[in-house]
Amino acid sequence: MRDILRSSQLPKPKFKYSSLIKAGPFYFTAGMIGLDFTTEELVEGGPEQETRQILQTLIKSLAEFELSLNNLVSAKIYTTEFDQFPLINKAWEEVFKDDITPPVRTSIGVARLPLNATVEMEFVLYKN
Amino acid sequence: MRDILRSSQLPKPKFKYSSLIKAGPFYFTAGMIGLDFTTEELVEGGPEQETRQILQTLIKSLAEFELSLNNLVSAKIYTTEFDQFPLINKAWEEVFKDDITPPVRTSIGVARLPLNATVEMEFVLYKN
Amino acid sequence: MRDILRSSQLPKPKFKYSSLIKAGPFYFTAGMIGLDFTTEELVEGGPEQETRQILQTLIKSLAEFELSLNNLVSAKIYTTEFDQFPLINKAWEEVFKDDITPPVRTSIGVARLPLNATVEMEFVLYKN
Repeated sequence: MRDILRSSQLPKPKFKYSSLIKAGPFYFTAGMIGLDFTTEELVEGGPEQETRQILQTLIKSLAEFELSLNNLVSAKIYTTEFDQFPLINKAWEEVFKDDITPPVRTSIGVARLPLNATVEMEFVLYKN
Repeated sequence: MRDILRSSQLPKPKFKYSSLIKAGPFYFTAGMIGLDFTTEELVEGGPEQETRQILQTLIKSLAEFELSLNNLVSAKIYTTEFDQFPLINKAWEEVFKDDITPPVRTSIGVARLPLNATVEMEFVLYKN
Repeated sequence: MRDILRSSQLPKPKFKYSSLIKAGPFYFTAGMIGLDFTTEELVEGGPEQETRQILQTLIKSLAEFELSLNNLVSAKIYTTEFDQFPLINKAWEEVFKDDITPPVRTSIGVARLPLNATVEMEFVLYKN
């Protein structure tokens, strides 16, 4: 069966879903928005800051399971502010430096996101 | 190779796609909308009723393959009525009760869905 | 670890992401838009022509890895022109003929896509 992984670094789900699940060698994250871990509210600063927050949360939670960005297989980026995608890329590239082979990626401009976030990201990882 | 699974409980695809595919220990559903099985039309009642219909169709079709909600790894929820997400959650929580560990989940407000549905859901399952 | 696959047939990513990744028996593509391989610009002609371009690019790049449409497990179709979905289906059905068992599919109308594309598609494949 699949394993529900509980990370001390991931905000507690507000609804009935899991944050991170392992199924065989694959790991699936829930859609992540830029929540401040302590206040559980969206960080200020729009797409750039929200992207930074999502990726920092991702990195910290992966570390608990001996995973890193090099295990990423796919990323989906949903944003309500598609015009500001260069700012999302800026925060993305702070993390995906040249020593990391980045995941495949799909970028989509959408109508609405939870908590009125401007960016939501979802990841699949692999470690065998 | 992957196996195309044919369920007596899933509405017949209206276009050239499969409804359910098994690839190794993973199962992938097509995007599902709240179709009434007999009329093949969208159920009435908006997001809440459509969500209920999708989940009931899912449960019935999984049973044919000895799968259950506990095999769910990930769910994506797309809705054109993001403001009504509490109603989607209400129907979701009727099914994902405390004895079920829920999948990871991504929720996205979109512009349009097939047949003018207000909710579309897509699932990945795992059974080894 | 997962393998980053480099195809001579896929346009070079414009940002920090990979185009195609193999993880175990699964292959994941990035979100693909209808780029002309030589000009690296979006093909003209709207949803129908963009869909045709995406699928031709997919087929050519799969061939390099001894994969074919019969290895497809899932497809996601995002479009900013949902009203023109019959044209997307038309181009789709030119490729998914009766001798091919098609993947599961999710169709979503979205607000914006990269390079103002009207169609973006993303695929998962399986070969064991």
